[in-house]
Order: sequence, then C-alpha cells, then structure tokens
Amino acid sequence: MNTGADAPVAAPIRSFTSAFQRELEELFAWRRDVRRFLTDPVSEQDVQSILSAVETAPSVGLSEPWRIVRVESNAKREAVISNFEHANAEALATQDEDRAALYASLKLSGLREAPIHLAVFCDEAGEQGHGLGVATMPEMRRYSVVCAVMQMWLAARALGVGMGWVSILDPDRVSKALDVPAEWSLIAYLCLGWPEENHLDCELERAGWEDRQRLKNRIITR
Amino acid sequence: MNTGADAPVAAPIRSFTSAFQRELEELFAWRRDVRRFLTDPVSEQDVQSILSAVETAPSVGLSEPWRIVRVESNAKREAVISNFEHANAEALATQDEDRAALYASLKLSGLREAPIHLAVFCDEAGEQGHGLGVATMPEMRRYSVVCAVMQMWLAARALGVGMGWVSILDPDRVSKALDVPAEWSLIAYLCLGWPEENHLDCELERAGWEDRQRLKNRIITR
Repeated sequence: MNTGADAPVAAPIRSFTSAFQRELEELFAWRRDVRRFLTDPVSEQDVQSILSAVETAPSVGLSEPWRIVRVESNAKREAVISNFEHANAEALATQDEDRAALYASLKLSGLREAPIHLAVFCDEAGEQGHGLGVATMPEMRRYSVVCAVMQMWLAARALGVGMGWVSILDPDRVSKALDVPAEWSLIAYLCLGWPEENHLDCELERAGWEDRQRLKNRIITR
Repeated sequence: MNTGADAPVAAPIRSFTSAFQRELEELFAWRRDVRRFLTDPVSEQDVQSILSAVETAPSVGLSEPWRIVRVESNAKREAVISNFEHANAEALATQDEDRAALYASLKLSGLREAPIHLAVFCDEAGEQGHGLGVATMPEMRRYSVVCAVMQMWLAARALGVGMGWVSILDPDRVSKALDVPAEWSLIAYLCLGWPEENHLDCELERAGWEDRQRLKNRIITR
C-alpha cells in the first residue's frame, strides 16, 4: 500500500552520547601493555569477540592484509620464548651501564603465563585492494594491521582481558618457527590472558624506566 | 582516626559493562575513512578532545614518538593538495585498463573541504624510551604512532567528527613542505571535519572497488 510518503527516508545515523565518550576515554586510560598474566583460560567466546574487532578495522584500499596465527603447539611457543630470551639478553648487553640493572629487573613479556598467543602478520603480496593507496606509501598495509591490533587491544580491555605486545623478538625467526608464507611480515606477537593486576599508570613509569611527556609539547603549527 | 581497618585496600579496578562492550563494537562498525566533509568548522574543544586520545595510546618503551603538525597555512595546505593530485594522477596512470575508469570515479581525499589538517609524524631519533623494545623491531616506533592515530579515529567518530587518512602522497615532499626535522617520518596525513554522510559500509565497497573477506579465512593455527 502506498502511504503517500514519497520523500526519501534518511538512513538512521548512529550517534554516541557524551557518557559513552567519557567511558571510551576511560577505556583508553585503563588499557595496559600487560606482562603479568594469570594462567586461567580465556573462553573461546572472549577470544572470538576480541578477534572480531579485526573485522571492522580500517585497511588501505580495503586490502584487509591481516593474517593471524593462533600459536597453540608447545614446541612453537617454546621457540618463541627462546627467541625472546635471546633477544632480551642481547638488548640487556647493550644497555648503558647505569641502566642495565633497571633493565634486567623489568618483566618484559608474559609469554610463559599467557594462555593465548597470537602472531599477527601483514600479507605484503595480497592482491585484495588492487594497490589503492599504497603506491607512494607501501607501509600503509602494515599500518592497517597495526590499526587492527589496536582495536583488538581495546576490545580485550573492555572485556577485562589483558593483552601484551612483545617486540623483543627476531621477527624472521618467528616467521620461520611458525612456518608462514615468505611474503608475510610479522607485525605483532600478542599475549592474551587475565591480568594479575590492573593499573591506571604504565608499568615502565612505575618502575622508573621512563616518564610520560606532555602532549602539547609534541604539537606544532605550520 | 584509626578505624581498625588494617587490611590492605584493593585499588579500584575499572571494569566495563556488556552494554559498553556492545557500544564499542558499534563504534568500530560506524567508524569510516571519511572523504566527504562539510566545510563547517570543528570546535577547538572537539579538536583538543580528539588530540587527547594520543596521550593514552601505547608506545614502545614509553617512547611516545608521535609528533603532530596542525597544518593551517593556506600555502602549505595547497602544497599538500598539489602533492595528492600529482600522486593520484600517477596512481591512475598505472591502473589496469579495466579498472581505470572506476579508479578515476573514486573520491580519495577530502583535503579541500576538511577544516582541520593534521600531519602525524614519528620521531625516529628521540631518546625517550631508551631504546626499549626496538632493537630487533625498530618499526615499533612507527607502529606506536599508528596506534595513536587509531585512538584519535575512534575518539573522533564518538564525537561525530569524521576523519580521513590520506596516503596518496609523496611523504618526503610533505615533510619538506611542512619544514619538519629530517628525523621525522610521515606516518599519517589526516583530514578532520563534519562528515556529509554516515554509513555502516565502506565507500570502496559501495563503489564496487573491493569486497570484504571473511576473517575466519585469515586465521590459521600452528
């Protein structure tokens, strides 16, 4: 039945309340790079919910270059742990004398305790996206994968699940240990699990490694 | 007055409701790479609110390597627009014959209309962070800046402000036009403004450039 309503119907637009905006700021503030995990399992429902945050991440040219490896075999986890221990020992050896003891005291990964390990790669050769937006900045594919990781991080913290990003690793050895295609680059090796602690400040600040700087000093006008 | 309560007081831990978790998923879903802007101004309060999302972004070793340039001079904006037009013409010239007309029909930047331009750089040489976490993966500094951009993107959409990331640019020419230190790398050139339209699907999908793929086909187990 024609009701006579011929005017085009505007699509409903999702807007967000100021209460939600404040909660989002709190989520940003409470997200930590977690290294202290309980060994309790994370439910498959929570893992899927965190992974689903990848689906809505931006990607250059809609290339969706993310490739995710769930690392479940003990042998492969041990290979990654050994990779970390080697890289961390080398990093310690290059510390200035006055910072080496502090460096050695930091807990820099939760690889042993975290129940979930995800290795997130960028497919540098996928044809999806038809090269849009990457001719002058090919790194945009890798940056798209980082955007997806950031969304996972926020989704995890909203659920109370901690995530840690381990970069003290030889990325080529990770790729080899996980037997992934040669055209995949490691972007992030992620630990997920229930955090032992929750803090508003970052562990590197609490440990005296580094202080936050004022953002206003990082902004200039041209 | 001592109340006799000697037990340690647990720090209050921020948890988030399932209602917030669902709204966060909706925020992810409604965030777009906006290229169609109104020319109406964005209030300084909104700009500061979006910029403040950088402060809580993760950074490797707490290096906070982000450096932000607000591009306000007409001459510098014109230099960036001309840079885009040149890079976009070159990209069009390399399209396959069967996709060139479609490429030419896409609107790939809102540089002319967007009231706010932000160029976001990574300081590759800053000493903050003391090199923690970057010995084997120096790209982590750039990835930290991408994390900050992603938080700005979400904060903007929560306010209803659109953000577009323009990568069809010669990054070295942007750096030169904006006269920034040689050790700064361009990560993202961002347009901000009120969007003409709001959509749940992405413009490249609507235009038939590319389709989304199923995430489950991008996840493997090792």
